[in-house]
Amino acid sequence: MYKQSEIKEQIYQAVKNVREKKPLIPSITNTVTINLVANAQIAVSGSAAMVYLRDEAESMAKLGEAMYINMGTIFPLYEDTLINVARVLKDSNKPWVLDPVGIGIGELRHKILSSFKSNPPSIIRGNASEIITLASLWALKSSTNENAPKGVDTVDSVDSSIEAAKALASFIHGAVAVSGERDFITDGNQSLYSYGGSHFMEKITGAGCSLGGVCAVYASVANPFIAAITASQHYNFAASEAEKVSKGPSSFQVRFLDNLYNASAEDIAENKFELVD
Amino acid sequence: MYKQSEIKEQIYQAVKNVREKKPLIPSITNTVTINLVANAQIAVSGSAAMVYLRDEAESMAKLGEAMYINMGTIFPLYEDTLINVARVLKDSNKPWVLDPVGIGIGELRHKILSSFKSNPPSIIRGNASEIITLASLWALKSSTNENAPKGVDTVDSVDSSIEAAKALASFIHGAVAVSGERDFITDGNQSLYSYGGSHFMEKITGAGCSLGGVCAVYASVANPFIAAITASQHYNFAASEAEKVSKGPSSFQVRFLDNLYNASAEDIAENKFELVD
Amino acid sequence: MYKQSEIKEQIYQAVKNVREKKPLIPSITNTVTINLVANAQIAVSGSAAMVYLRDEAESMAKLGEAMYINMGTIFPLYEDTLINVARVLKDSNKPWVLDPVGIGIGELRHKILSSFKSNPPSIIRGNASEIITLASLWALKSSTNENAPKGVDTVDSVDSSIEAAKALASFIHGAVAVSGERDFITDGNQSLYSYGGSHFMEKITGAGCSLGGVCAVYASVANPFIAAITASQHYNFAASEAEKVSKGPSSFQVRFLDNLYNASAEDIAENKFELVD
Repeated sequence: MYKQSEIKEQIYQAVKNVREKKPLIPSITNTVTINLVANAQIAVSGSAAMVYLRDEAESMAKLGEAMYINMGTIFPLYEDTLINVARVLKDSNKPWVLDPVGIGIGELRHKILSSFKSNPPSIIRGNASEIITLASLWALKSSTNENAPKGVDTVDSVDSSIEAAKALASFIHGAVAVSGERDFITDGNQSLYSYGGSHFMEKITGAGCSLGGVCAVYASVANPFIAAITASQHYNFAASEAEKVSKGPSSFQVRFLDNLYNASAEDIAENKFELVD
Repeated sequence: MYKQSEIKEQIYQAVKNVREKKPLIPSITNTVTINLVANAQIAVSGSAAMVYLRDEAESMAKLGEAMYINMGTIFPLYEDTLINVARVLKDSNKPWVLDPVGIGIGELRHKILSSFKSNPPSIIRGNASEIITLASLWALKSSTNENAPKGVDTVDSVDSSIEAAKALASFIHGAVAVSGERDFITDGNQSLYSYGGSHFMEKITGAGCSLGGVCAVYASVANPFIAAITASQHYNFAASEAEKVSKGPSSFQVRFLDNLYNASAEDIAENKFELVD
Repeated sequence: MYKQSEIKEQIYQAVKNVREKKPLIPSITNTVTINLVANAQIAVSGSAAMVYLRDEAESMAKLGEAMYINMGTIFPLYEDTLINVARVLKDSNKPWVLDPVGIGIGELRHKILSSFKSNPPSIIRGNASEIITLASLWALKSSTNENAPKGVDTVDSVDSSIEAAKALASFIHGAVAVSGERDFITDGNQSLYSYGGSHFMEKITGAGCSLGGVCAVYASVANPFIAAITASQHYNFAASEAEKVSKGPSSFQVRFLDNLYNASAEDIAENKFELVD
């Protein structure tokens, strides 16, 4: 179990290490927010590279330091690409982050997300509804949730997803980050809330997707729990500072990305978080 | 026939209703401006969700309150997805908006756009050349237009498309919005011009695409004519205000999206428009 | 061989001609930066149109004044589209720009890039590693480069790519532009460095892709060497001015696009460049 001070120190080191190493973090992600994912990864000192084809994904999985897979918009070739790249990532012992956005829509998405149970990610990032639904899909926790997601926005509160998040984190021996008014991050054993952020995060597309991409950047230099915490702290600090000087969602996004780039390791480590049982 | 004051009241109500309901508006749209479409829909209080696969599109058509289909960049799977989702939208009695961008280029686009004649949209939004060419494709009006579109930019004036727009609107029992220096909106019976906007709208990609996406948001709470008017008024107000404080096309886009979010229902209803015969 | 003053005059004319003609410049480009490519092309007064399907690409190749092909993210259909459109471009004698981004990753990319040797572009734009690898792929210069690109970022210096760039430019009877701290542009016979730019160009995704798209705009009104120089000068001027007033990479991108739009023909011609042997 980490103490508060140890987590701060680990966050600090993760930020320093990424800025020194500039790790290559390939992604397979949706066409809606692909540009924001890449720009966010670059802003935090990762090197971004997006692919679609199976052989390219497998090559990049081996070349990269960690990978990001986001299910927002899928094409038929994703069946071949995603199911196989997950196996390569497992065999190569590479950390990877899954964003199960859109879970519940369509047969192919169901098939691919089901397959990941055998080759699980290191970190799962989603909103509360997505986390609850994934835990149910993998039969880790029977859902008491009557409202499955009907689109890409959550219909559940962060706190209602805590048991699902812990079950998923324990199953994958990794971490789960649930985005919301305060973010809940757990490794199944230890959990915390990260505070800050901005109401504008729900008024732009891709706040969650790009957070997933940044989790993957930090997963290249830290364990899944610390990586998910560091990414969330980085996001929450940058967003809360951006809100202060923004006139609306688009000027917020500009300033938010600037702040991702400008935030110091201290800023990120000292952003408010709270360990919980 | 609406009186001027009734249209203002209807616009006001449409804006209020969208902001209260936050309707889910799925889209199938091009890869160039997909991010702007989503951000514009979110800025006006819609919930955006983009898909490509047939079964996902059909599910979202049923789940959503209205749908947006934009033909800007098409993939082979669009044949299966678009032709079938139009039937589902008709059977579900869901309003949807078509942006026939790129009409005239390629066989598949021709086939899909032709098929929509049997399962027509509630609103068609395009530039003058696209509206003239679609009316001709559907054999509603023989084109006297010697210049078919050669790309995505118009080669015709808004006023030259009035008869085509009216013919299309009458045929679909919906509305047509022609974007230009002043926007022309018609339900085939009654028409108006919406004023404002900015010369910068032609200096960014996606001004028209995202307007189509916002028409779909308003189509979830108002009839097609009122929805197209409200979206155009919202755009023209936000753009004219943005131009005043912009240094170029990109700072304009940022401020424009901020203004979409910040514009009040009164601002949108009171933006200048003019009923015409 | 151009004199310094002749190059300035040619740059000036290229900018003036594009702003007068607003040439249609179709692109086949990656999903990550497709929006920035279009916005950059529009900001410099081109008309952008993106396609994926073979027949659409062939139509647009004939309709457009020049074309841009970027290999960043490829789909299976690119084999049919790209190999054939290169032949159409050659047969139509239309200038086109190749950005071989991602070279070295995957079989399909290898096959397509190899095929372009028979139907070569007018301009090749890339980073140093991409230029070295392409010259090697086309067997124009045996690579002494032990580090093939491992992603999309360069691992070589601009100057280490000079011989490869000259060999490629001579082979295609066109021009090669190598992006870096100072850009190297050559037609195989005559070369120059273009100065300026900004360190923020490496902190956003698509600086290189969109430069390629703007090279294609200028290739519609000037020979490949002058077109590549004009685009680089335009970029370097706009970026160095933007850096002065930016708070981070995203506010830089906004201002950079504004500056592309606002830069005068004189600004672009007078930006620092240096002829070299």
